[in-house]
Amino acid sequence: MKRHTIAAISTPPGEGGIGIVRLSGPDSRAIADRIFRPARPHTPTWPARRLILGQIVSPEDGQAVDEVLLAFMPRPHSYTREDVIEIQCHSGYAVLQRILQLTLQAGARLADPGEFTLRAFLSGRLDLTQAEAVLEVIQARSDASLRVAAAHLAGGLGRHLTRLRDDLLDLLALVEADLDFGEEVPEIDLAALVHQLEALESEITALCQSYAQGRMLRQGLQVVLAGRPNVGKSSLLNRLLQTDRAIVTDIPGTTRDVIAENLVIQGLPVCLLDTAGLRPAQNLVEEIGIQRTQEHLQQADLVLYLLDASQPWQVEDEPQLQALRDQSILVVLNKIDLPRVLQPAAIPSAWPHHLIEISALTGEGIPALKEAIFQAGMGGASPLDGQIVTQARHCRHLEHCRHHLQGAWKIIQTAQPRELLALELRSALQELSAILGLEVDDEVLDRVFARFCLGK
Amino acid sequence: MKRHTIAAISTPPGEGGIGIVRLSGPDSRAIADRIFRPARPHTPTWPARRLILGQIVSPEDGQAVDEVLLAFMPRPHSYTREDVIEIQCHSGYAVLQRILQLTLQAGARLADPGEFTLRAFLSGRLDLTQAEAVLEVIQARSDASLRVAAAHLAGGLGRHLTRLRDDLLDLLALVEADLDFGEEVPEIDLAALVHQLEALESEITALCQSYAQGRMLRQGLQVVLAGRPNVGKSSLLNRLLQTDRAIVTDIPGTTRDVIAENLVIQGLPVCLLDTAGLRPAQNLVEEIGIQRTQEHLQQADLVLYLLDASQPWQVEDEPQLQALRDQSILVVLNKIDLPRVLQPAAIPSAWPHHLIEISALTGEGIPALKEAIFQAGMGGASPLDGQIVTQARHCRHLEHCRHHLQGAWKIIQTAQPRELLALELRSALQELSAILGLEVDDEVLDRVFARFCLGK
Repeated sequence: MKRHTIAAISTPPGEGGIGIVRLSGPDSRAIADRIFRPARPHTPTWPARRLILGQIVSPEDGQAVDEVLLAFMPRPHSYTREDVIEIQCHSGYAVLQRILQLTLQAGARLADPGEFTLRAFLSGRLDLTQAEAVLEVIQARSDASLRVAAAHLAGGLGRHLTRLRDDLLDLLALVEADLDFGEEVPEIDLAALVHQLEALESEITALCQSYAQGRMLRQGLQVVLAGRPNVGKSSLLNRLLQTDRAIVTDIPGTTRDVIAENLVIQGLPVCLLDTAGLRPAQNLVEEIGIQRTQEHLQQADLVLYLLDASQPWQVEDEPQLQALRDQSILVVLNKIDLPRVLQPAAIPSAWPHHLIEISALTGEGIPALKEAIFQAGMGGASPLDGQIVTQARHCRHLEHCRHHLQGAWKIIQTAQPRELLALELRSALQELSAILGLEVDDEVLDRVFARFCLGK
Repeated sequence: MKRHTIAAISTPPGEGGIGIVRLSGPDSRAIADRIFRPARPHTPTWPARRLILGQIVSPEDGQAVDEVLLAFMPRPHSYTREDVIEIQCHSGYAVLQRILQLTLQAGARLADPGEFTLRAFLSGRLDLTQAEAVLEVIQARSDASLRVAAAHLAGGLGRHLTRLRDDLLDLLALVEADLDFGEEVPEIDLAALVHQLEALESEITALCQSYAQGRMLRQGLQVVLAGRPNVGKSSLLNRLLQTDRAIVTDIPGTTRDVIAENLVIQGLPVCLLDTAGLRPAQNLVEEIGIQRTQEHLQQADLVLYLLDASQPWQVEDEPQLQALRDQSILVVLNKIDLPRVLQPAAIPSAWPHHLIEISALTGEGIPALKEAIFQAGMGGASPLDGQIVTQARHCRHLEHCRHHLQGAWKIIQTAQPRELLALELRSALQELSAILGLEVDDEVLDRVFARFCLGK
């Protein structure tokens, strides 16, 4: 089965110095030949992995499209282990589109999202944890998350899991040998087996537990600012971002559309959402705005619920806080620069939430608020302790693996047949194999690579 | 004077497959050496222009940052004719920032916007029209504008101007020889001189005239949608974009912030701005919105002034149209799907503007509207006729050049002294030299390159 040659714009969209169109597959060289005119025409052979200066020219009318650098990376010494062509042009909307179109007209097919990396995985250049780490590196929004992602890309997690899998394989081999050749091999040391199982399980458990941190590091913490109109949500957003991002006025209902901005708190990426103030909507536009607020509240990792310290306790806040009772909330008492009216004690004790006092106007209390946001996200753990699992898929397989290891332990404790023990161990092994991509079906691969951007 | 080594992220910001950090200057190689660890450590010499696989590693703690391809382009065979290093990493916010920081810590200085291209110009690799064309290629938003930009980058405009300048230099030499060695050289053929002057002037005039097109092709046409609330401005925006970009409701004053979107009409890039409806503001937020509308109206290349065809003529439109009388306007009669009330004849005849009837709801009349927008932008000219001037700077110098050529012509007609003729021709020549960058001061260069993005 001959593979198609794929093409895509591999740099982010936008204006910039350099943009790249990439080709991979058996016809890469021939396709590039049709549209590339080297500056020194007497270089008919393209030396491997060498940047060659020239022009992209439309074959139809001979019109120059851009001055470019082209590199030919012949298989297997390329990202995909196929023939790869990289065209470095200027980065602009029209020029990148035009060059991509020319490669498609010359016979390439538009790559699916993540298809270059999928080919790198299928060719064995990357294991599945590394392929997934490519996306983590791209999406890292803080040095802490980049560090974990780069370790994964370099194969750190893959090697760790491979070692655990090897240990498990040894245990399985022991049990199966006993089943197959019980007479001929020495009796299994059950105490030692239990000990090894426990050690393995504790390592798997540690990985599972690291996922709470890992998820925050990778996806960032979704923090929603909520509260009645005019309690200072937009002012707090501006204060945390140190900019004038949101329009602030004295008029209730100024914010309608959700405003989303990113910041980094102690290495933890945070997505901050400012929302329409919660009150009975006074018109259709505000109603749509408040609806969107409610949707974002449900998906928040953390809600900062603002109260105005210069006003008495408002009963309207009670149902709002009621509705949020299952979520992680920080109650933020704003406007402490004004004469104080609302005391923490006046807030119904049914809400024993963490309470922070701030002034968005003067900045008082903001460091404590940031620390509280960080604690809510990282749960007090240092983000860089050892191996960290960042993918939901990995966490799921590790949980299943742990479950099977516990099953194996119980089988030994209750002296059930060895066949059952072998079965549990084999199931546990399969889960680790699945993380590494040793045993995965197409559906899983589709799901993994569909999250990629185009051109990777 | 030893130049600094500069560094910048050369790809657009954002998530994507590939991002590039670029270095240029004498220390590029040494700086890269400190942070790059090749995958094959036994490659101590970096072959020129070859992509080398390896890792970027933080020298402080040895932590891997990303897997990269690195290319070393030794001077003078590089973009800047200095030693250039290109680091291709993954494109993500944190990873690109981290690698850039490492190059700065290792001794590079952050490049100014356009500084790589400035160095390419100062080293003589590009003339000034080509350097400016780099920005044109990057900013091109349609195939038509890309085509003109690519021709400029390939030196088309530069060669054309160089030929005109050579012709002018010949004329000047003739006149100066006559001044210096009047006795020894043959008498000037004044009729032939006038003929040559006229030919030159007509070519310069054609270039000046091409600027109206060129500017539209490069910057796009700023089209502002204006009119009273609820005449269908947001609906028309959505119709032209074929999306649901703007919130549309029956409530007057739904749009407050200016919504800007780009589209391309027959190769002409158009920036479409939807604005708050014009009426006495009913609150502060609307007032700010209407203020912004007025500012955008003043800068518009074309105003689409919408009227509701299902309503009688509204006197409030009169002062608005009055205020726009010096601008290019299309009066757009919307909602012709509803029973017709407003007839074109009812619109005061003081407004003999081009009038288009449409229905944003059904799409009727939209092709005619698009054609009218295109005509307003391109003035009926084909965008690809010959040499096109796209830069205000070029147009200014060409106007001055033409002025001096006309001065020279008058001097001959009125038989003034030959010294004055030589003076005018020399001034005309200087203007052409300035376009090509043969005689420019630092201030001009600063202005030209300040418009560039970082990393180019």
